[in-house]
Amino acid sequence: MNQQYPSVLLEKAVNEFAKLPGIGRKTAMRLVLYLLRQDEHAVESFGNAIITLKREVKYCKICHNISDTETCRICSNPSRDASTICVVENIRDVMAVENTQQYNGLYHVLGGVISPMDGIGPSDLQIESLVDRVKAGGVKEVILALSSTMEGDTTNFYIFRKLAPLDVKLTMIARGISMGDELEYTDEVTLGRSIVNRTLFTGTL
Amino acid sequence: MNQQYPSVLLEKAVNEFAKLPGIGRKTAMRLVLYLLRQDEHAVESFGNAIITLKREVKYCKICHNISDTETCRICSNPSRDASTICVVENIRDVMAVENTQQYNGLYHVLGGVISPMDGIGPSDLQIESLVDRVKAGGVKEVILALSSTMEGDTTNFYIFRKLAPLDVKLTMIARGISMGDELEYTDEVTLGRSIVNRTLFTGTL
Repeated sequence: MNQQYPSVLLEKAVNEFAKLPGIGRKTAMRLVLYLLRQDEHAVESFGNAIITLKREVKYCKICHNISDTETCRICSNPSRDASTICVVENIRDVMAVENTQQYNGLYHVLGGVISPMDGIGPSDLQIESLVDRVKAGGVKEVILALSSTMEGDTTNFYIFRKLAPLDVKLTMIARGISMGDELEYTDEVTLGRSIVNRTLFTGTL
Repeated sequence: MNQQYPSVLLEKAVNEFAKLPGIGRKTAMRLVLYLLRQDEHAVESFGNAIITLKREVKYCKICHNISDTETCRICSNPSRDASTICVVENIRDVMAVENTQQYNGLYHVLGGVISPMDGIGPSDLQIESLVDRVKAGGVKEVILALSSTMEGDTTNFYIFRKLAPLDVKLTMIARGISMGDELEYTDEVTLGRSIVNRTLFTGTL
């Protein structure tokens, strides 16, 4: 394998890129040769951006979202509704919900979902700190916004058991057919649920 | 756009990844979050590998292939046949030919092909240095191994005109149907050429 590469430095860089998920050796080579064609400043800015991120990134001490400061921009924003907490699996989910522009409360990032297959138990996730936030008072509603998977559901049930004794409203994001979905191609479980959980139609969507 | 990201550092890193060819913002985000889950040492080794490559990489002064030394491993290998030069477009092509294990001569990396659409003329490529190598003597054969594209052919013709007056045999890699190709799906030009350039069949392939 070594002999294929005309340069050890090149090989090292390709190896590093090939470690990334979804990047094979051919793609890695293409990316490295692309970077090699850029000027030195651009390459350093690339390399340093990720090193700096890893070194300096913080996680919000309240919601555990990624942040540049001790408390993230959302948790420290006084115009957000601090009485509602939306529980999500990861940082990308926060961004996804934010992008809908339909939510004005705070978040709680679990850092994953319970998955015995992957060795992830409740104690590996930010569940205790969620319970503490609710116990601290001031929280009226906790919205569970986890993926509609077995792991997501397991986590939903676990959190439910933890929060049910407390004085807080527990809700779950709606499950049903997606916008643009055609009925005949929707799976039976989803379609069945969307009939059971039908909502009142008032003439507007 | 800025407000979507919970952290400026995160955004910077995603922006850098999204500059790479074939990497969109979603993939960039996925890669950055993957790196963020690795330990600091791994992330630094990733960032530094590419910075070091850019800073310290050399190009062989003879064939212009990427190299860790002034003269590359192939050019400085006394067991390679220095009387044959294989002309290729880029570093990846050197690796592709090397991987066939069918070639024992030296290379000459042009650094691209003539492409007026992209503003690449003969003077942007290592063509003069190829002519100089041949003029210096000792070269018996120059094999043109460029892509079978309009740009590749243009470059072939240009090099042909430059080298034809010199005392050197000029050859081109064979064009024909690929291994495993079915005739009915082969384009006419390729099929036509492969008939014109048929080779003697001696009972072995």
